[in-house]
Amino acid sequence: MDLARRLRLKPGDRVHLADIDPAGTHGFEKSDELEAMLAKNIERLDELQYLMYAEHRRALLVVLQGMDAAGKDGTIRHVMTGFNPQGCRVTPFKAPTPVELAHDFLWRVHEVVPGKGDVAIFNRSHYEDVVAVRVHKVVPPSVWKRRYDQINDFERYLAENDVVIVKLFLHISKDEQKQRLERRLEDPKRQWKVSLSDFDDRKRWKDYQRAYEDALTECNAKDAPWYVVPADKKWFRNLAVSQILVETLEAPDMRFPKPTVDLARITLD
Amino acid sequence: MDLARRLRLKPGDRVHLADIDPAGTHGFEKSDELEAMLAKNIERLDELQYLMYAEHRRALLVVLQGMDAAGKDGTIRHVMTGFNPQGCRVTPFKAPTPVELAHDFLWRVHEVVPGKGDVAIFNRSHYEDVVAVRVHKVVPPSVWKRRYDQINDFERYLAENDVVIVKLFLHISKDEQKQRLERRLEDPKRQWKVSLSDFDDRKRWKDYQRAYEDALTECNAKDAPWYVVPADKKWFRNLAVSQILVETLEAPDMRFPKPTVDLARITLD
Repeated sequence: MDLARRLRLKPGDRVHLADIDPAGTHGFEKSDELEAMLAKNIERLDELQYLMYAEHRRALLVVLQGMDAAGKDGTIRHVMTGFNPQGCRVTPFKAPTPVELAHDFLWRVHEVVPGKGDVAIFNRSHYEDVVAVRVHKVVPPSVWKRRYDQINDFERYLAENDVVIVKLFLHISKDEQKQRLERRLEDPKRQWKVSLSDFDDRKRWKDYQRAYEDALTECNAKDAPWYVVPADKKWFRNLAVSQILVETLEAPDMRFPKPTVDLARITLD
Repeated sequence: MDLARRLRLKPGDRVHLADIDPAGTHGFEKSDELEAMLAKNIERLDELQYLMYAEHRRALLVVLQGMDAAGKDGTIRHVMTGFNPQGCRVTPFKAPTPVELAHDFLWRVHEVVPGKGDVAIFNRSHYEDVVAVRVHKVVPPSVWKRRYDQINDFERYLAENDVVIVKLFLHISKDEQKQRLERRLEDPKRQWKVSLSDFDDRKRWKDYQRAYEDALTECNAKDAPWYVVPADKKWFRNLAVSQILVETLEAPDMRFPKPTVDLARITLD
């Protein structure tokens, strides 16, 4: 299966989101077999995380981006539970606090970069600083345009320091978003979190798609690749994300370290 | 089922670990039915965590303590995966760093106390500062004895500020520890982490049991109770921990907040 490769953007290529079908499933169909594949991937993630922890050589950083209702929370809930919660930290990046705003935009990101052996999952990330910030004109173009290089430098630095970076753009259609937001309005377990601003960004759909296209195009290195995951169908999204993570962690030849002590010499009373 | 109540220590009671059977199962027997009960509890934890997150009124702090090989990591792996990784952070407390040592002993603990709606799991905790630190004579008795009150004040303060505290002592026998350490020595996936110091604490078994008895007795408040979980049998340990957590989160009458906006006024294009 070369699903991960097919969803990965090639460095240097210009991204056109309109050309990528958000409902695409790359020939897969929903089935019990596929459920089993997802379950197998989730189990495999747990093994690979343990191996990475044992090896203590590299860390995994997963960046999740997407429009509202694209499925970031759902992906975490359904796929990332494969990771042992010990050694896996999810950071949701919300509107920056006054202290965070008093710093450079990567300051709060750097603080939660994973240590060797650990997994960090960013629910939104520094990419908001070239997407939402741009769409809402929080800073002038001269500032956000400079950030592409700053992000590239930062991510290259992390990669050089053994952080494996995977960036996932959950790609949904405007229609699918509408249906999801409507269901949210009707669900008593989710009505409490509805705010009018949630619906504001929807009006800027085109601006967002364009800002994402630029971010995905400008910040896409071999060691910090973007994947565009068609996300209208949740089952495909979950399968694809799990597959990308498994293939990413299987790529390096990770091995359990040798014991540091002569085990034969240990006796227990 | 009143399993949680039976495992909870009564405030004011003196704890005698030797009187509590580490292999006890409180009448339960390993069965498919029990597996299903654990699975149900784990699902329920996810629901309760979501409700706590929605309510945004209280936080959950789970403290895990126990001898080496008592099953702290295993409990996290098998039970705490019930929590959505977003909003659940596991902090393993290891030997303090120089910066941590330059501060009061609760400084590094306070930093990772959960915020409203969140779950924090401590793999070891500030209790090492009255247990391991005492056994290894890191500080004089005048210092660690004073810490009981300091811990009680700190935990009461957290409880008054809506942190729900659950403290779990995983209680294993010296024989069971021996078997587990031996299996660890033989397991190629775990040999890498064997260090001679792991076996050193076993020689101080009695000192540790006594230090734990004092800590469990001195620091056991209604709002920050200790549970002694018989942990020789992993299936019982997992069931008991899941049950304690479910009952703890079901105790307060948590409800979804009302929507803050007039949902009928929202229209989607």
